[in-house]
Amino acid sequence: MINYNFFNPTKMIFGENTIGQIGSVLSGAGHKKVLLIIGGGSVKSNGVYAKVTDSLKSANIEWSECSGVRANPELSKVQEAIALAREVGIEAVLAVGGGSVIDTAKAVAVGVYLDDVWQAFERKITITRALPIFTILTLSATASEMNSNAVISHTEAGKKWGMGNPFLFPQVSIIDPSVQQSLPWEQTVNGALDALAHIMEFYFVGTVEETTIAINEALMKTIISMVDKLQVNPKDEASRANLAWAATLALNGISGAGLKGGDWACHGIEHSVSSYDAKVAHGAGLGIIFPAWMEYVHANNELQFARFAQSIWQCDTIEQAIEKMRAKIKQWQGQTKLRELNIPENSLAAIAENATMRGSLGSLKKLGTEDVEKILRLAY
Amino acid sequence: MINYNFFNPTKMIFGENTIGQIGSVLSGAGHKKVLLIIGGGSVKSNGVYAKVTDSLKSANIEWSECSGVRANPELSKVQEAIALAREVGIEAVLAVGGGSVIDTAKAVAVGVYLDDVWQAFERKITITRALPIFTILTLSATASEMNSNAVISHTEAGKKWGMGNPFLFPQVSIIDPSVQQSLPWEQTVNGALDALAHIMEFYFVGTVEETTIAINEALMKTIISMVDKLQVNPKDEASRANLAWAATLALNGISGAGLKGGDWACHGIEHSVSSYDAKVAHGAGLGIIFPAWMEYVHANNELQFARFAQSIWQCDTIEQAIEKMRAKIKQWQGQTKLRELNIPENSLAAIAENATMRGSLGSLKKLGTEDVEKILRLAY
Repeated sequence: MINYNFFNPTKMIFGENTIGQIGSVLSGAGHKKVLLIIGGGSVKSNGVYAKVTDSLKSANIEWSECSGVRANPELSKVQEAIALAREVGIEAVLAVGGGSVIDTAKAVAVGVYLDDVWQAFERKITITRALPIFTILTLSATASEMNSNAVISHTEAGKKWGMGNPFLFPQVSIIDPSVQQSLPWEQTVNGALDALAHIMEFYFVGTVEETTIAINEALMKTIISMVDKLQVNPKDEASRANLAWAATLALNGISGAGLKGGDWACHGIEHSVSSYDAKVAHGAGLGIIFPAWMEYVHANNELQFARFAQSIWQCDTIEQAIEKMRAKIKQWQGQTKLRELNIPENSLAAIAENATMRGSLGSLKKLGTEDVEKILRLAY
Repeated sequence: MINYNFFNPTKMIFGENTIGQIGSVLSGAGHKKVLLIIGGGSVKSNGVYAKVTDSLKSANIEWSECSGVRANPELSKVQEAIALAREVGIEAVLAVGGGSVIDTAKAVAVGVYLDDVWQAFERKITITRALPIFTILTLSATASEMNSNAVISHTEAGKKWGMGNPFLFPQVSIIDPSVQQSLPWEQTVNGALDALAHIMEFYFVGTVEETTIAINEALMKTIISMVDKLQVNPKDEASRANLAWAATLALNGISGAGLKGGDWACHGIEHSVSSYDAKVAHGAGLGIIFPAWMEYVHANNELQFARFAQSIWQCDTIEQAIEKMRAKIKQWQGQTKLRELNIPENSLAAIAENATMRGSLGSLKKLGTEDVEKILRLAY
């Protein structure tokens, strides 16, 4: 087994009616003025915004606000928020939303200290500091609430790239899973598919790392069964909570311990797809790409794919398991083919080209541009 | 589901040949002089001590040494180490050993700032600071390397008590699982039983906390199968590594997330047993107490015990599962009855009395002195 480090200092506050703690959390950390970052307005309709701002007021914390972060968050919004942060002077960033909002907040936290934040995504500069980051999660999917990664889209350059750095760990994240009861169904599904994908990025490079492999199977089975339960009753409190916590653990370090950094080809391919068309939800894209990737690469770790087929899908072959996975996504009313997302077939070569602009993808099987195009065709 | 917090800032460095990093870890943290705490000498015979001291010398770190920490570590040794620490002046404590050594180091880290460290175990004072704690683990069992607890025996008072405080999280812990290849077999077994017990203390209070319950089943199954493999080949590197990592996760917060603080009656009972006779290894005692406790309390959470029987032991009833668990411990050459530890039968009432001196034990079923005595008789 390879050597690895595990380090995750984010404090998680989990449970119903926990959002009102944010004021005392921030004042306890010595902050008096924060930049509040939100998305398109769902936090106003579901009552989360009111809970947050009431709590900030009670704790005498001032805030400036940057709203309108979209899914597949954009560099332009990051730059807008950085300008605002510099103008008003803030001591911390507070993200209230899903992974896109949190990733934007992370980029802002780093970017206020940089001339050009995109250089951090280009890996052309070293990050040496960041503003303290606090988050209130409203959509379980990316685990950004408890990890040190951020993914931002540079639309003009056609780049959807990530960065990772210990300074990006939130100091405190609050998850009240009950606020996710009102999510549109496809967002619950896409979030779950994103979490499953994070686990699978590690799982399939596994061989003898039994502790992490077994945990990953537990997480995958839990996520699938919780989505099944929520499809029957979207307000089931325990299922929301279990799905939320499993999604956090899916990419907080636990799921990757010992698994060689994972594969990440599917994420690379999906980032190119949603960079091509920002209307593609990241989780939906992953739910389409992953089965196609599995078809293409399973011969490279036959034993582990057979274990996956048996353990997660009770199937004798990986081919059967892939079909069962696609059937499950259909049962959840998700998409299983790129054509359903209205991606034009004649764009696949360009998407493959874009996905591999920094070189080959993946570790289980190194995928060049042609490999990626073949996977995109399997996914089409 | 209940609300909970998760916070664990300990950095883990895991893998073969990682012990030599300790010098640069300490100097990177700005320390120049540490108190090195070790046990009865196995670290000298297995080469760990030489690796540690070579690394300290290379990094120009001075150390003073306190040796001779025994299993079920004593307050008197803590006091001796505190006196030494004050005399020589140190900036951090470095524990090199198993849970007993680490718990001693934690008590020292707190105790150098207190008039009487035992008052912290009596919960009569508030801990407001501690020296930074670093550990090198040589026996996977207690997870003290990645949690904020310490258990110390006050022999004269007949008290084996624990304390928990965020200041007790080690800053950095190093686990090189390969150094455990040379452990006496019963220490591997006792360590695994301790880890299993930590998981079970949480697991049996579970109802709908599926994410944590499923992870706990994954950890329990992994621990059992890794011990089985090590019984065939004690030098199997991957099995040592998986067992070590599972034992850490068994009590680092992950196994308890959402599970209401756990039950902990069995630990309370066992602490009284090994307080009565310090030759009783904590894990061995737990392996005896737990099945008896399960017999006594399973009616209080019938569904969860049935799930345990099915999931971990492939049994239809909890009674069959308890027998299979005892058979497994026997297969591992462990003990399944208190009489095998040479505890006199006429001491059971006093052990029960001592176990409940601070009140009833457990949460699944509140256990008074008479209940505990009945469990001890079932375990006899």
